[in-house]
Amino acid sequence: MIRHTVVFSLKHAAGSPEEAAFLRDARMLASIPGVEDFEQRRQVSPKSDYAFSFAMNFVDAAAYARYNGHADHVGFVRDRWVPEVERFMELDYAPL
Amino acid sequence: MIRHTVVFSLKHAAGSPEEAAFLRDARMLASIPGVEDFEQRRQVSPKSDYAFSFAMNFVDAAAYARYNGHADHVGFVRDRWVPEVERFMELDYAPL
Repeated sequence: MIRHTVVFSLKHAAGSPEEAAFLRDARMLASIPGVEDFEQRRQVSPKSDYAFSFAMNFVDAAAYARYNGHADHVGFVRDRWVPEVERFMELDYAPL
Repeated sequence: MIRHTVVFSLKHAAGSPEEAAFLRDARMLASIPGVEDFEQRRQVSPKSDYAFSFAMNFVDAAAYARYNGHADHVGFVRDRWVPEVERFMELDYAPL
């Protein structure tokens, strides 16, 4: 089991319609095969200035790789993530 | 509900007895009042060079603040975290 997380900030103003549209449209990532327990969270630690995070589980590295290569994921990255995300960091977790 | 996470790397060599002792002893954090769903995870994304993460839930900001100020937490930070952790980053999540 791998918990894939990405923490990010958007180019859009906080509370803007563009921000809401990005978060709404990103929910389609949950329907890509292999994605389990998809979550959208707000990053709230004052020690970090990232604003949001997405998280999802994959049963194994092969399922994660299929997601990465899936046309819906590739298209989302190209059409929404790259143009609208200001900066991000990926962190993935496996049980100790 | 707040999911408090910290991602970190240790000064100890990977696979060393000191690394194992730190992770073992840190399990006591789970017994501090207010800590729920405590997890220790390995950070596995090749896009990050952090090695480990701890995560825990708090029912609200007050429970989180009580944990931060609890003597067992303060002592752990002073006696183990500061001397043994090379670098770290905190990220906290709340539902959107």
